[in-house]
Amino acid sequence: MNLKTKDVDRMAANKVDNGFYGQDIISVSQFDRTKLDYILSVATEMKVLVERFGSADLLQGKILANLFYEPSTRTSSSFMASMLRLGGQVIPINNVQYSSVTKGESLPDTVRTLESYADVIVIRHPEVGSAATAAHYASKPVINAGDGVGEHPTQALLDLYTIIEGLGDVHGLKVAMVGDLKYGRTVHSLTKLLVNYPVEFVFVSPDNLRMPGDVLSVVQASGHPYLETEDVHNIVGEVDVLYVTRVQKERFTDLAEYDLVKDRYVVDSELMSRAKERMIVMHPLPRVNEISYAVDSDPRAAYFRQMRNGMYIRMALLAAVLGKA
Amino acid sequence: MNLKTKDVDRMAANKVDNGFYGQDIISVSQFDRTKLDYILSVATEMKVLVERFGSADLLQGKILANLFYEPSTRTSSSFMASMLRLGGQVIPINNVQYSSVTKGESLPDTVRTLESYADVIVIRHPEVGSAATAAHYASKPVINAGDGVGEHPTQALLDLYTIIEGLGDVHGLKVAMVGDLKYGRTVHSLTKLLVNYPVEFVFVSPDNLRMPGDVLSVVQASGHPYLETEDVHNIVGEVDVLYVTRVQKERFTDLAEYDLVKDRYVVDSELMSRAKERMIVMHPLPRVNEISYAVDSDPRAAYFRQMRNGMYIRMALLAAVLGKA
Amino acid sequence: MNLKTKDVDRMAANKVDNGFYGQDIISVSQFDRTKLDYILSVATEMKVLVERFGSADLLQGKILANLFYEPSTRTSSSFMASMLRLGGQVIPINNVQYSSVTKGESLPDTVRTLESYADVIVIRHPEVGSAATAAHYASKPVINAGDGVGEHPTQALLDLYTIIEGLGDVHGLKVAMVGDLKYGRTVHSLTKLLVNYPVEFVFVSPDNLRMPGDVLSVVQASGHPYLETEDVHNIVGEVDVLYVTRVQKERFTDLAEYDLVKDRYVVDSELMSRAKERMIVMHPLPRVNEISYAVDSDPRAAYFRQMRNGMYIRMALLAAVLGKA
Repeated sequence: MNLKTKDVDRMAANKVDNGFYGQDIISVSQFDRTKLDYILSVATEMKVLVERFGSADLLQGKILANLFYEPSTRTSSSFMASMLRLGGQVIPINNVQYSSVTKGESLPDTVRTLESYADVIVIRHPEVGSAATAAHYASKPVINAGDGVGEHPTQALLDLYTIIEGLGDVHGLKVAMVGDLKYGRTVHSLTKLLVNYPVEFVFVSPDNLRMPGDVLSVVQASGHPYLETEDVHNIVGEVDVLYVTRVQKERFTDLAEYDLVKDRYVVDSELMSRAKERMIVMHPLPRVNEISYAVDSDPRAAYFRQMRNGMYIRMALLAAVLGKA
Repeated sequence: MNLKTKDVDRMAANKVDNGFYGQDIISVSQFDRTKLDYILSVATEMKVLVERFGSADLLQGKILANLFYEPSTRTSSSFMASMLRLGGQVIPINNVQYSSVTKGESLPDTVRTLESYADVIVIRHPEVGSAATAAHYASKPVINAGDGVGEHPTQALLDLYTIIEGLGDVHGLKVAMVGDLKYGRTVHSLTKLLVNYPVEFVFVSPDNLRMPGDVLSVVQASGHPYLETEDVHNIVGEVDVLYVTRVQKERFTDLAEYDLVKDRYVVDSELMSRAKERMIVMHPLPRVNEISYAVDSDPRAAYFRQMRNGMYIRMALLAAVLGKA
Repeated sequence: MNLKTKDVDRMAANKVDNGFYGQDIISVSQFDRTKLDYILSVATEMKVLVERFGSADLLQGKILANLFYEPSTRTSSSFMASMLRLGGQVIPINNVQYSSVTKGESLPDTVRTLESYADVIVIRHPEVGSAATAAHYASKPVINAGDGVGEHPTQALLDLYTIIEGLGDVHGLKVAMVGDLKYGRTVHSLTKLLVNYPVEFVFVSPDNLRMPGDVLSVVQASGHPYLETEDVHNIVGEVDVLYVTRVQKERFTDLAEYDLVKDRYVVDSELMSRAKERMIVMHPLPRVNEISYAVDSDPRAAYFRQMRNGMYIRMALLAAVLGKA
């Protein structure tokens, strides 16, 4: 995140851009309330645009390099659709392990090559800190689409947007996160974003998959009330948001333990019958068995809306960093 | 193929769309003579458009999700070109086995994710019935680009279009299908389409690769004359269409049998010298040894025109299901 | 490179196209001074266009089939960006080994299929002569993006462009090529292009990786002075261009020999302190250890500008063969 050529351009153009033009999107910690309000409102404009016109030509002539070092159909397709719906174009770079990287090229060289072709770079990489490294070497804006167990800021933003869209407001909500809270990157990032608002947290997990200390510290430091529990049935009736994470088999050395956890937190019609009438169930998808298919038709199921909102958020970010929001 | 949001949209827009707008294209059995006439005439318009202008902006702002669970350069490129030539955009999703599917996601969830980004979905999948499953869960139109040994309706339509383009009319033609008629998906679908017209069939294959009973039943039920034979030399002089299938080595347990079949039905200059002056040779491609390269320059060789016609047919279908034909 | 349909079109349109319209770009030997001057000047126009407007709509409605039989993120992305920045569209075909080719399809059939969808074909293939074969069977223009140890003409053109851009002129320059000159395809092609100009050559390599006889013959036949040496330190102070090649481990049977070569020709700050103030360091990238990162900030380092210039050269070639330059 060194000095960007766009810093200069911005001053020249005297743009009102709320501080996004030419910048990188690496971490949720970049977002204060002002920036959150701005991006969420642009996302709503994008939603209206798509629903009314399907697409626009805001980013016509702009090119996105969509650089995925590990496969993620969902995220790469979402960024691609976002760019295309704004009239831009995309260079998709998948399976990078099979390409020049195998000849030993470093990430900085790859990024500097791609920025000679493209106007903005989206990067998904298995190593923590890789997006920041890419941003350091690039003079064009870089957007983090997930760096290992590090951050996935656009996921956290779309989660926040979905909560506000679904419940009207985020103030005073009781938000439960359920399942594997230890390794779940999405719940870490969302928690860090939500401390910008007056909410209550409920962390539901088996003892060995509890929310890590550094995330709890953020919650404690900001003075937000929170509860840790192993039982989802006791709390489901009180919460406004039930955020379910995927329980990944590969995290467990003891398979019996996996089965216990997997079965313990399944969201099914029975559990939903205990929930409030006005609440939402979220999941970053893909799901395995965490939410039964019967819940899909429940109006409180928000996980497919999350996908759609992901496109609006990414449209907003792409437009913002390219100075066209 | 449940109720589509487009059913409602269509009524609202009071569109004259011949029943395609917002619908799925899953099987050749969806096509009666009226629908065939409509799509074939739109394909001709597309041909004129491409030859005269190269491309159009009919589908500007629309996005196709090109979802290929198994590789098919030919078919995926054809759909891609079709969308791009109409001014639309494409999200290509190849090698899905390496992506979220490996994390265990179901086809319905993948389809529901993609339709939150795209306006229409093309799917190629190794399992019979998968396209219908996708269509069931999607509210956006789904086009079947081949579901295992099931159907490949756009291939059958382009074959029909090529016959009519090459010979002026399909009425009264004698159509021979040659080679592996047991496993050849394309000849099954084409036969089912051709029973809409007054044609005669000749099925040429070794005894163990004869046309399956269910396809023959369709021919019998519609009262079309047909002949089964093992010898292509005896019939080549009488037919208007010689449709050659690829003989796939992997179908045979006895390799000697494969070699026999492979050599028996090769279309070469000698065979073509016995054929009528006005007839066409077709092949779905890729070919292995079924047609010798010497035949390529014969004006009766229609297999490269088939490729081109595939683009026109797919342009017609995309425009039709998106309500822009 | 048989008769192209465009030969006829060109005459009909009476285009002033400097002989590129509808033609293939297969080898550097196609380029005489007139053609070089033309393409280099169009590349400069493309540079101005990109810097001023980002993109144009010169190739709107045109489709490029980007056919890569072996992975090359750098080259495929460069061609893709070039087509997109001119308003055209791209069908990317990567990992062809997994597609219809595995069903046994020949290159001629693949090319004839793709040209039924696209307006121009770019091909990267591991076998020498494959691009010429593709061009022979295609009636649409074919551009060689590297055929094994054969040619990579667009790389040589961008190298030449970078020399002229960096030093104002190519006349009278002393050009050193360093490293693996035996297997380095790029230095072979660049040498063949540079004999069109009054330059001096210095070939720096270990004895077992010297410039091959056929390339030296071209230099000798055109009467250009050249020197062969094993020592880069002795010559670095005199040269205007230091073209560094990648030393590929897989070329060596003796690993000790590899280490020797690898360490011997590293361009670092110490070496650069001996170089002229006005000179440039080039590298086709990806680099491994041949140039130290400390040199990146040296204004004489031209290897990232090479990347950018590659896009301008490819834009120029695409526009030229499609008759829009």
